[in-house]
Amino acid sequence: MPAPALTADEIGELLHEVFPQAFYPGCGLTLERVDYANVRVRRQFHGDYLRPGGTISGPTMMELADFAMYVAIFSAIGRQPLAVTTNLNINFLRKPGPADLIADAKLMKIGKRLAVGEVILYSDGSEEPVAHVTSTYSIPTR
Amino acid sequence: MPAPALTADEIGELLHEVFPQAFYPGCGLTLERVDYANVRVRRQFHGDYLRPGGTISGPTMMELADFAMYVAIFSAIGRQPLAVTTNLNINFLRKPGPADLIADAKLMKIGKRLAVGEVILYSDGSEEPVAHVTSTYSIPTR
Amino acid sequence: MPAPALTADEIGELLHEVFPQAFYPGCGLTLERVDYANVRVRRQFHGDYLRPGGTISGPTMMELADFAMYVAIFSAIGRQPLAVTTNLNINFLRKPGPADLIADAKLMKIGKRLAVGEVILYSDGSEEPVAHVTSTYSIPTR
Amino acid sequence: MPAPALTADEIGELLHEVFPQAFYPGCGLTLERVDYANVRVRRQFHGDYLRPGGTISGPTMMELADFAMYVAIFSAIGRQPLAVTTNLNINFLRKPGPADLIADAKLMKIGKRLAVGEVILYSDGSEEPVAHVTSTYSIPTR
Repeated sequence: MPAPALTADEIGELLHEVFPQAFYPGCGLTLERVDYANVRVRRQFHGDYLRPGGTISGPTMMELADFAMYVAIFSAIGRQPLAVTTNLNINFLRKPGPADLIADAKLMKIGKRLAVGEVILYSDGSEEPVAHVTSTYSIPTR
Repeated sequence: MPAPALTADEIGELLHEVFPQAFYPGCGLTLERVDYANVRVRRQFHGDYLRPGGTISGPTMMELADFAMYVAIFSAIGRQPLAVTTNLNINFLRKPGPADLIADAKLMKIGKRLAVGEVILYSDGSEEPVAHVTSTYSIPTR
Repeated sequence: MPAPALTADEIGELLHEVFPQAFYPGCGLTLERVDYANVRVRRQFHGDYLRPGGTISGPTMMELADFAMYVAIFSAIGRQPLAVTTNLNINFLRKPGPADLIADAKLMKIGKRLAVGEVILYSDGSEEPVAHVTSTYSIPTR
Repeated sequence: MPAPALTADEIGELLHEVFPQAFYPGCGLTLERVDYANVRVRRQFHGDYLRPGGTISGPTMMELADFAMYVAIFSAIGRQPLAVTTNLNINFLRKPGPADLIADAKLMKIGKRLAVGEVILYSDGSEEPVAHVTSTYSIPTR
């Protein structure tokens, strides 16, 4: 497997530069592992994410999955902040309780125009996934 | 067409009761039209929604689409706050600039167990959709 | 609305030329309407399409939806037989009984690289859709 | 892991009983492995599956993925021929050449009402997947 195009620290700096309102010290997002086209990110739990029934809301999970894909894209093709999602499909499998969310993102295809990946979301401390995502990013012409 | 199961005002009160951290006076979400299984909601623009390139981020659109589906569910089957999304698929079509987002949600099937709907997202002032969503909700046994 | 890039007859000839095993006189597929980026095709009923329960099988519907998208692509961008599906998402809404299937396909975006469309499937004689499809085609560089 | 609810032979007999026009000796479909909620099926290559460009068509892949999910459902919950697909999402990753197709299907959730699974399709002899599918089946009340 090749080395990642950018390290976790480099991706963190890039995210803070281009997305300062979403990624900053204390924002609750952590890049836990960055390998080539294969990353793990964590979203720290916050009570604002709860929906009726006491479980974490769907949009919280979708946002984390999209973020994890974005990081995976950087890990594979480097500094491409204008890569954009063209499709995202999510199946919600189990209701995550009040705990951190963990997202494992892996690219299945890295083409010239499109990258396609899979993200599996877990509630910290459980082995069964809470959601499964596939997503496509369009890559600007280099 | 039958009357909606709940009016816009009743849905607004229900949302504020069950989701106070997301729906409250000044939150920027408006229920613009509530017919039976067919609703329009609006998300007021805020600079925090922008992503690199100056367009509104994907998660902002996904969250609004999911919210519009939730409102459409209430319009068709009434007070069911524990209805949950089981699947959401979004295609991003055009990049929305800095303007309000409008979501038109329509249910295509209202079964005993599942409701399936379509949401079309617009950037205020444009006629071409910025995103197209289909989504399935699971309905608790009544 | 612009005129279609190819007429129904021209698309029929192209399909027969490039896909002779699937589209030929008597194959049961008819191009009923070809407007720009907006087409209707029909699949004549055949008993082989039935699955347990006496309804038409899912793959029969998916194949027809993909075919309708392919025709819609030709109607918008002309002779591009190497356009290929990159994503297809289908929600099955109602079980179609033993009758013809009708597919209405409409493109929502026609970009340089990608075209995104929606297909609604009906069972002949019913007004409620039996399935809803969104699909993306990748367009070869011209 | 529990034993499968039905063996490969039992599933083959059930398929032949309920779907005689699709599954019969010589039909080209083989159940290569049946574990609990985790199966492998193979579709023998046939020239009729080719599309322009000499690669296997999308509908051939979608049909095989749906079939593999159906087999996985039987492996987990036994004789339920009226289980029906409610959603299928496919991403086409690479173009399969003229070779057998192999489908690995695995259920991620087996609920009372819904089962959700993932299918990865390979072209025989290649390690990179040609398509990735997620799909939901609705399970009749027992």
